[in-house]
Amino acid sequence: MERITIAIDAMGGDNGPMAICNGVRIAKSRHGKVDFRIYGNLETLRGAIPDFDESEFVHTDKFVRPSDKPSAVLRHGQDTSMYLAIQSVQQKQSHACVSAGNTGALMAVSRLLLKRMSVIRKPAICSCIPNGNGFCVLLDMGANIDCDPSNYLDFAVMGDAFLRAIIKKENGRIGILNIGTEAGKGGEKLNTAYNMIRASKLGAKFIGYVEPQDIFNGAVDVVVTDGFSGNIFIKSAESVSMFLKTVATKLFSDSILAKLGYLLASNAVNDVKRKFDHRKYNGAMFVGLDGISVKSHGNTDDVGFAHAIDVAISLVRNNINDIITENIKDNTFLRQSE
Amino acid sequence: MERITIAIDAMGGDNGPMAICNGVRIAKSRHGKVDFRIYGNLETLRGAIPDFDESEFVHTDKFVRPSDKPSAVLRHGQDTSMYLAIQSVQQKQSHACVSAGNTGALMAVSRLLLKRMSVIRKPAICSCIPNGNGFCVLLDMGANIDCDPSNYLDFAVMGDAFLRAIIKKENGRIGILNIGTEAGKGGEKLNTAYNMIRASKLGAKFIGYVEPQDIFNGAVDVVVTDGFSGNIFIKSAESVSMFLKTVATKLFSDSILAKLGYLLASNAVNDVKRKFDHRKYNGAMFVGLDGISVKSHGNTDDVGFAHAIDVAISLVRNNINDIITENIKDNTFLRQSE
Repeated sequence: MERITIAIDAMGGDNGPMAICNGVRIAKSRHGKVDFRIYGNLETLRGAIPDFDESEFVHTDKFVRPSDKPSAVLRHGQDTSMYLAIQSVQQKQSHACVSAGNTGALMAVSRLLLKRMSVIRKPAICSCIPNGNGFCVLLDMGANIDCDPSNYLDFAVMGDAFLRAIIKKENGRIGILNIGTEAGKGGEKLNTAYNMIRASKLGAKFIGYVEPQDIFNGAVDVVVTDGFSGNIFIKSAESVSMFLKTVATKLFSDSILAKLGYLLASNAVNDVKRKFDHRKYNGAMFVGLDGISVKSHGNTDDVGFAHAIDVAISLVRNNINDIITENIKDNTFLRQSE
Repeated sequence: MERITIAIDAMGGDNGPMAICNGVRIAKSRHGKVDFRIYGNLETLRGAIPDFDESEFVHTDKFVRPSDKPSAVLRHGQDTSMYLAIQSVQQKQSHACVSAGNTGALMAVSRLLLKRMSVIRKPAICSCIPNGNGFCVLLDMGANIDCDPSNYLDFAVMGDAFLRAIIKKENGRIGILNIGTEAGKGGEKLNTAYNMIRASKLGAKFIGYVEPQDIFNGAVDVVVTDGFSGNIFIKSAESVSMFLKTVATKLFSDSILAKLGYLLASNAVNDVKRKFDHRKYNGAMFVGLDGISVKSHGNTDDVGFAHAIDVAISLVRNNINDIITENIKDNTFLRQSE
């Protein structure tokens, strides 16, 4: 196994550089042959980190704020830790970068520096959703509000590659998110996308239209959708989970009997918490760029950030972009006939 | 209070005419001055219902099946219980109809017979989502895949009227569902809709863009969106709830300690179950038609169906269509300038 290097934006995320650097430490303990280039303010980091190893760090005192406009970061943000981390991927000093910072800025700078893969029309945000049987890969989660039918085919190719790289599943079932499962539902655009994927080399893996419940039932492995619907889907799912968690917490603290009941059940509750620990599903990729750029949740802690690093390492080790190129090549006939 | 009549499709829904008729019985016990016209197969109903009162029933042996295509029901379904129930609203024999049957068919027949309100460009499906503070009214939940900006304004008007009729809230906050809350997010169509609502007589109630979490946080009372996103939103929310319920059930049955814990906490758990009983939030309306047509969840039981009847009665008693007409009239200046 070759050594690889992961670039880290230490200054992004709601929990500060300590969470990021501790995440790196956790990831290091899990992976051999991985080096890190950590971009951030050395003064801040040196003070905060006990066993600070200066050789891994690249100093910059500029960083991207959550409120910064992507366009402003593109124009004036060349010295920020985020920009430099992405640039190190562009310049082949690193194999991938990971940031918990401003999503819009990370996407804009990644697109500018890493460039779109020539075979892909629209890069997309791709991530894993946990369900009863494991995971489902979903894209686009918010990069493209409007999509053409051909974008859905690209998303299917990239989602399938993501599944093979991260989850090692070769025979994933691919579906298009829709408001019903019957063929013909959802309007002309989706129906054209349906026919394109059906006619492509991925046709054998294509199971047609799926609904949100299929994602949680484990009935599908890769779900493609436009960035608006994908974003509404994931935020609905997250906010219902949060809402029910709040209700359950209040429930178990409202009466002494319920508190006692919770204590008795706590082993079982903790098992479930472990299984569905959202930190394990941290790490979304901008697929379709000539380089690997991974976005961690902004409010992640060190454990979650380490998982985002795991994702980046898996994507590098499994050559996701080679799989995408290979998949697309197989579909050339279809692209020429468009 | 005047007497009103509610038409019931007894043959729709997954749980058969018994669930529907028992739902009517529950609703009767809650409401005075309400008569029912129940359409269905008298042979079936007479055998199944102990204290069968023939005067309320109108016999037909035809009914709409879940798999029937709406177009086929429009052409050949004139004798079905669903069609006849809607027709009795058209012919002013009833003030509203309620069905748990085939959604597509109910929508198609309702549109055909009740006609679009002249002031509304696209009717929509409207319902209540429970949250920590009460409810949020959401539309469109699936009637219109593609919407123009002016449809969002109509949805705002109708949603506000629904809120006032059902929840009696005069100063509801209205938002547009989007993938971020900043003005300018979401593309040109949403931004035009944003400006139209802001400039309308509802402008003072308009709080701008909202995200799924705002619905559950109680930060907004009426949320407008196209039927694709609305449907994805509601199905995501429902499927996460179901998924977490399955996980929790398994959790509390997997170990003896957890079972015991559940028993101790059962009072508190039941309180929460009561509060978020999905049956209470049953009853979606096709708003924007010249008549009131209410859709119950297909898999509802009698308690849920009774709640759908409550919704229909509230809409009649509070003259929802008069509120809509009034609201739209106030916005005439805007409609002329389109």
